[in-house]
Amino acid sequence: MNLNKENSKALYLQIFQLLKEQIKNELKSDDKLPPIRKLAEDLNVNPATVARAYNILEEEGLIYKKVGRGSFVAPKYSEQSSISEKNKSMLKHGQIDLSENINFASAVPSTDLFPVADFKYAINQVLDRDQGEAFTYQKSQGYLGLRNSIRGYFKEDGINTDLKQIQIVSGAQQAIDIMAKTLIEYGDKVVVEDPTYFGALQAFRSRRANIKAIEMHKDGLNLDKFEDYLKNNKIKFLFTMQNFHNPTGINWSKDKQLRLLELADKYNFYIIEDDLLSELYYSTNKVDSLKSFDKKDRVIYIKSFSKVFMPGLRLAFIILPENLLTEILETKYATDISSAGLTQRAFDYYLREGLFKKHIHLKRELFKKRFEIMASEIENKLTDLIELSYRPNGGLYFWLKLPEVKNSNAFYETAVDRGVVFSPGNLFSIDQKPSPYFRLSFAAVNEQEIALGIKLLSNAARRFLNDSKDNSNYSPLL
Amino acid sequence: MNLNKENSKALYLQIFQLLKEQIKNELKSDDKLPPIRKLAEDLNVNPATVARAYNILEEEGLIYKKVGRGSFVAPKYSEQSSISEKNKSMLKHGQIDLSENINFASAVPSTDLFPVADFKYAINQVLDRDQGEAFTYQKSQGYLGLRNSIRGYFKEDGINTDLKQIQIVSGAQQAIDIMAKTLIEYGDKVVVEDPTYFGALQAFRSRRANIKAIEMHKDGLNLDKFEDYLKNNKIKFLFTMQNFHNPTGINWSKDKQLRLLELADKYNFYIIEDDLLSELYYSTNKVDSLKSFDKKDRVIYIKSFSKVFMPGLRLAFIILPENLLTEILETKYATDISSAGLTQRAFDYYLREGLFKKHIHLKRELFKKRFEIMASEIENKLTDLIELSYRPNGGLYFWLKLPEVKNSNAFYETAVDRGVVFSPGNLFSIDQKPSPYFRLSFAAVNEQEIALGIKLLSNAARRFLNDSKDNSNYSPLL
Repeated sequence: MNLNKENSKALYLQIFQLLKEQIKNELKSDDKLPPIRKLAEDLNVNPATVARAYNILEEEGLIYKKVGRGSFVAPKYSEQSSISEKNKSMLKHGQIDLSENINFASAVPSTDLFPVADFKYAINQVLDRDQGEAFTYQKSQGYLGLRNSIRGYFKEDGINTDLKQIQIVSGAQQAIDIMAKTLIEYGDKVVVEDPTYFGALQAFRSRRANIKAIEMHKDGLNLDKFEDYLKNNKIKFLFTMQNFHNPTGINWSKDKQLRLLELADKYNFYIIEDDLLSELYYSTNKVDSLKSFDKKDRVIYIKSFSKVFMPGLRLAFIILPENLLTEILETKYATDISSAGLTQRAFDYYLREGLFKKHIHLKRELFKKRFEIMASEIENKLTDLIELSYRPNGGLYFWLKLPEVKNSNAFYETAVDRGVVFSPGNLFSIDQKPSPYFRLSFAAVNEQEIALGIKLLSNAARRFLNDSKDNSNYSPLL
Repeated sequence: MNLNKENSKALYLQIFQLLKEQIKNELKSDDKLPPIRKLAEDLNVNPATVARAYNILEEEGLIYKKVGRGSFVAPKYSEQSSISEKNKSMLKHGQIDLSENINFASAVPSTDLFPVADFKYAINQVLDRDQGEAFTYQKSQGYLGLRNSIRGYFKEDGINTDLKQIQIVSGAQQAIDIMAKTLIEYGDKVVVEDPTYFGALQAFRSRRANIKAIEMHKDGLNLDKFEDYLKNNKIKFLFTMQNFHNPTGINWSKDKQLRLLELADKYNFYIIEDDLLSELYYSTNKVDSLKSFDKKDRVIYIKSFSKVFMPGLRLAFIILPENLLTEILETKYATDISSAGLTQRAFDYYLREGLFKKHIHLKRELFKKRFEIMASEIENKLTDLIELSYRPNGGLYFWLKLPEVKNSNAFYETAVDRGVVFSPGNLFSIDQKPSPYFRLSFAAVNEQEIALGIKLLSNAARRFLNDSKDNSNYSPLL
């Protein structure tokens, strides 16, 4: 097995690919793989690098581990092919496997950024403290200690709330699902930003909502169009991401935020604010949540801790208007009774001890660097071919547009051939129509990968745009 | 502070109550409580006893803890009263606070039965092994390792399944919710057992299903009535608990199981089998799941690990018919993306190492003892007043019936006055009408508490039945 240490491809990925080949072509089911330390020695790399490759192999279902006994080739069951088909379809949902490609599609921070040791410490602390209590049902509303520390933490962000208005949930997607169940009856009208987060669309569709999308401008929703719609349509709520919007990176202006609150009052609807990334501001100023201006209890504020922290925690909270409290509690119960107690308790400890604040600070610094590299690479290598729709000042996303309404889905194929993946724009629209837009995320790529990825993307774009030009049969689909 | 060590009430509950009084009447917000060791010394009890009292105080929201600094009186915020109101309403949902009463209502095993040390070990093992991978998103279908070990574990129970048919979810309630979302459109017909689990009813109602309840006999559903209904009504599914049914404790006979499968085939509907307690058989024989007889992929099998293990884990799985796989995956994604990775990985380890099997074996022995005591206490002290509807041979429930269609809701008030709580029968019916039935669970009570609780209940019954006799204004509500 030979590694190419000059190769720009990360060593763990090289190891992963070589082993994958071996497993496919040479090894049999239940064959034992070399011990991590041994292989690391042979290849003259860090054991952590080999361990990382093994982890991906395991997650891909190619090997399984027995603690203390090593790693083994997984039974080569017949579903292997159907799994890859499924992975393909999961791409639609943003759940993309780690793979050989440079991944500008994933919005999930790579796992080496997780504060595993600190959180492990927190888990052990609360297990010693709470024993079995950590594993029984929590109240449906959430562990009181955590609700308390959340209240304290967000006071600093200008969000004042009563303890009773805080509902703990298992991630932002569950928050959206619970709000959809509580507020949407068959055929009810709701409004979303265009483009928007597809997971929200799925939850609203599951309730058979009538969904209207209204275009985003560079300072937020087109509120004139929105008000025109409101004049003739009674809506249940607007779903919005006010800062570092997914997928565009846009921040709403304060003027629009205030006008939106007036509209909500005048036309009597709720606003569901999904605050996914507001911690990731890279200019000197914090950004303002809509909730911090909300005097009339119109805003349902969803905050995920897991998004910029560790998504596998499945932990978020909702700040609710008072009149919805009882109903939400019943919906949460019918949804999954309560969120996991150990996670709530460990995260409470992590918050109280100031570890979360420290971690977010570090992450902001790190992402800021990546952001700056990505922005300058895009400007240097891409903007002669592809338009950057909006220059964000935080978050994890860049939103780009192919010239002449080309279809970014078709471009995706060319890019994959060149070794780079992203999220085509059709994923973010209510009708999934082909779109000239696409999203680049730098959550899961390091600085070297960013530079290489943009270069690959630039090559792909040059080829794609040329091909399309040559191809007289090409007809734009949008 | 004085404890009464002759008192039958557990010491930790005595300590809890005394401290609760002090907090309410004497202490101020943020006052420090005595250290656990100190108080244990003063009272001449085990520190674990004091710690348990402190844990309940915390869960009740009366105190908060700072690691390394001790316990403090929680801010006495104004919602205190509204919280108790909420607790009252949560009684309806089976989420009952630990309290001064002997608790025959809770179906949740008490926390001192949890294998905390073993599970903590498992968590630390997988954290060392998987590092950050344990905290990123798992695939929506679940961690492959866990799906593999589940397949192996259930093979022994006669359930053969393909890996691809196993979907991991965050507890049985989520499984029911996901099935409801996937299968029920507005107004669709579904059938449930009468009585049944209220959490399922809530999920079906949330989808605006048309729910029909059909009576349970001592060997399972009244299948003649069911077939009459099927002749005139197209249904989506039957929701059933085949063994140690909640709330009646009934096991379906094998004859009825086989006939049910025939009906499903003939009238083309699914069967959702919620297997909550089949591990808890106390006679020599295992019980058969419906799934183990299912040749035609009609049965959607839901199995919660948390119910008889540690409910706060929020972990369960579904075995799905092949044609539902894609749809379910999309529903799971829209519900909460994926279940927590760390829990899945730790539980996988726990299963693989045989620790789960060992634990379930111990729990069966322990519950068997409780079951036998409870059965004999009921027969000796209660059946002259109240009828035992069914003599179960496993599980956690006894289902009783007041004479002369008295209302068990009214009886509940009398029982609470005597210091014992249970679950009134109206909770388990689709229209929540007053019912003469009620459920006793011995999940959360130890052997002493069982004996005392049945005695208290017998007193309460004597009083209640006399009172009702005297009261000529009494009119049965059912």
